[in-house]
Parts: sequence; structure tokens; C-alpha cells
Amino acid sequence: MPRFFVPPSALVGDLVTLEGEQAAHAKALRLAPGEEVTLCDGAGTDYRCTVSSLQSGQLTLAVQQSMPSCTEPTLRVSLYLGFPKADKLEHVIQKATELGAFEIVAFPCARSVSRPDGKSLAKKLERWQKIAASAAEQSGRGRIPQVLALDSFDQAVCRAAQADWSALFYENERQCSLRRAWEGRAIRSAAIFTGPEGGLTEDEVAQARAAGMAVCTLGPRILRCETAPLCALSALMYAADELA
Amino acid sequence: MPRFFVPPSALVGDLVTLEGEQAAHAKALRLAPGEEVTLCDGAGTDYRCTVSSLQSGQLTLAVQQSMPSCTEPTLRVSLYLGFPKADKLEHVIQKATELGAFEIVAFPCARSVSRPDGKSLAKKLERWQKIAASAAEQSGRGRIPQVLALDSFDQAVCRAAQADWSALFYENERQCSLRRAWEGRAIRSAAIFTGPEGGLTEDEVAQARAAGMAVCTLGPRILRCETAPLCALSALMYAADELA
Repeated sequence: MPRFFVPPSALVGDLVTLEGEQAAHAKALRLAPGEEVTLCDGAGTDYRCTVSSLQSGQLTLAVQQSMPSCTEPTLRVSLYLGFPKADKLEHVIQKATELGAFEIVAFPCARSVSRPDGKSLAKKLERWQKIAASAAEQSGRGRIPQVLALDSFDQAVCRAAQADWSALFYENERQCSLRRAWEGRAIRSAAIFTGPEGGLTEDEVAQARAAGMAVCTLGPRILRCETAPLCALSALMYAADELA
Repeated sequence: MPRFFVPPSALVGDLVTLEGEQAAHAKALRLAPGEEVTLCDGAGTDYRCTVSSLQSGQLTLAVQQSMPSCTEPTLRVSLYLGFPKADKLEHVIQKATELGAFEIVAFPCARSVSRPDGKSLAKKLERWQKIAASAAEQSGRGRIPQVLALDSFDQAVCRAAQADWSALFYENERQCSLRRAWEGRAIRSAAIFTGPEGGLTEDEVAQARAAGMAVCTLGPRILRCETAPLCALSALMYAADELA
């Protein structure tokens, strides 16, 4: 069923009107009067609606029933990744949204080649947030993960370490697996942390460890910088029994 | 360290000469005499070598030491996926290779839009195998996963069901999770099975179930056809303690 996110303020009364890109999307889907659509307020509630009318640039929906969204993981996983090249970050945003990430946080590392800032960053954040919104609609999420960009590695470590549990994945770590670091914890928030194309430096890893983060391996195979966070996220969701 | 796959027959004596694409790759990496390179015979043995000479189109290596490859998972996971569009299949081949898949098997489903066959398929298989080889080198695998294309869904089900354990992931399954289906098994081979863009049909799912495959959910979020197999593979590798 098509799914659209709307701000809670749009859900007043029994009729909701969508315009702009959402109306254009509805037209592309050839929605006809009577067909069902789900609206989601991005804050935990879904609304089953039927199409009342679809005119040029305006989709009007009649709200039939509200119900709690049931697709959000209980565990809030924040995915921290060192700025990779642009296309890889976009890929990770789309996939991590499907896989249930709570938020996606990018930051510059010593070996990041890409370091967007200022005006370029503002434009990119807008684009990244749109990618997350579109993936959230397509995958049936109950909220759109926020995409954030931090100014520095230090900030990223401080923020990630505030989660109930946090782990950094490092290709030179040989001892500690995610399985061992995780061990069936009952917590509400987790942060997973991966590096850019060139990897994290030893200093960066030491800094994260000092801040209380677990330093883990994802196995002996070297994963690309866009593969590691999605592998870690999938594994953690499995470990936390969220793939059920 | 750069890594090249060579056929076991190339590893006779203490000097090995690489030509063609591998020599070109070595040149692109600006390898200099004395630098270390790993050769892998794709059958479980790595050879630590040093560069003897790199001339136009010819890289000569001196073998220093042989040792067992230590990056192959113990569990052999075959990834079966209904033909998606071409770019998605290439993506899955690259990522599944990094993540340790034993082989990647594509096949037509009722809802597959892409159904390469004949001459076009032969060319594509060659390309897919190259993608797997390149990802295997980059991720440090001990073997190159084979990429296979089967003629029919029936063939795929029969072949997948021969694994020690096999599971199909279906978006309409609500009860059985991978965790429940897996339950810490000690086996040698597993098959995971996912559908194309439009999903699997109920008939296809029933056929797989009848053949003995577990039918599982990956959670309430709808995953794209290229995301589902990689999520399932990552989760299974975690479950089997292969991310250590």
C-alpha cells in the first residue's frame, strides 16, 4: 500500500490534502478514488485512508482509521560513519533506513577524502534527508531517520558514546567480535561506528576506546566502507531480535 | 597488501609471472621491486611473495612462504536470488562476496523482469564472475565465489534444498524469524533464498516450503530485493559466529 509521511499538524479532521511532490508521486502511482493509502505522522501513528480525489497537484484523502506504527525497531540504532565519497554515503543512507536505523550521522575522519562543509553541506543534507524519507516510505517505516553531519571526529565520539551501548568496527581488531561485545543486552539505544575508505587511524580507534566504546571486528574479510556499516547494522538487528 | 588469484598450476617453482589484467593492475598500484604481494590459489592456500620485477605487461614474483588462507567462513552459504535488474545483481555479487558467500545463484522467478538467456547470459556470467573475482581480491577471500545462473525456479528450489539447511525470506511471512529457524545449528552448508523486485508469488513460496525450506521473515520493514539477501547473509554470518 502506498505510504506518505505527513507532519502531525496535517492530520486535523477527517480529510487530508497532499500537494507538491507527494501529489505528483500519487499521480505517478495512478491512484484512483477509493484506493487505500497509509499516512504516517513520523511519530508512531499510521492512518489508513482512502483516496477522495486526485486532481492536478492535489490529492485529497479521507482518514478511516488510526493505529500505532508497528514497523519501528525497539532498539534505537544510530549509525555513525566517517564521510565516504558522496555516492557511497547516499547508498548507506538508503539501505540503513530500510534496515531500521534510528539516525545516520556522518563526520570527517583523518582519512576522509570527502569533507563537505558550509553551503555545500546544507544542500547535501537536504538531499540526504530526502533519500531517507523516500526509503522510509518505501520500506514502511514509522519514522524518517534523521541524517546529521557533525563537524569533527571528536564530536562524533562524544555523541556516540552517550548511547546505552556503542561499538566501533576496526579492520585491525582481531579479538573482540560483535557477538562478544553485545552479549544479549537489554538496552534502548546503540551506536555503531565505522570509518571512511582509507579506514580509521590507530589514534582515532584509541580515542573511541577511551570514550568507552567497544572496538570490534566484523571478521577476517576486509569490508568496503559502505558494506561494513550495513553488515554491522544487519547483525545487530539480528542480535537484538529485531528481524522478527 | 595487494592480493591476486592465480590457478594452482601457476604456482610451480619459486618464481611466478603474472600477465594481462593482473600485470596492468600491479602497474596501476605502482608496485616496486621488493614490495610484498599475496598470491592465492583459490583453493585454500595463500603465498606471500615479493616483487622481483615489473616490466611492461609482466609482473614477476618470488614466493617466500605459503600458508593456509584464514579468511574463508567455515559455513558455506549459497545465496540464491531471483533475477533482479542487472545493476542490482552486480551490486549483490560484489557485496555478497565481501560478506563471505560461498556461491551466488541467480534464477528466473514468475515476477522477474530481467531473464537473460543464451548468448547474452554467457556474456553476463563472464562479467559477473569478474566482479566476484575483483571483490574476492579486495576483501582478502581465500576463494572466488562461483556465480551461477539456473534455468528455472524449480531448479533453484531443488538445488537450494540440498544444503544442510535452507531458508527462503518472504515479506508476507509474519511468524518465523531467521533466529527461530536457525537456532544455533552446527552444519556445513546453508542456502538463503530471496525474490526479485516484485517479490515471490505464494505458489513459489509454497513450492519452496514443500521442498523442505524454512520460510522466514526479516522483520516488518519491506526490504528492497538487493537489500534482503545482504541483510540475511550478514545476519546468518553473525548467527553462525563467522563475523569473528
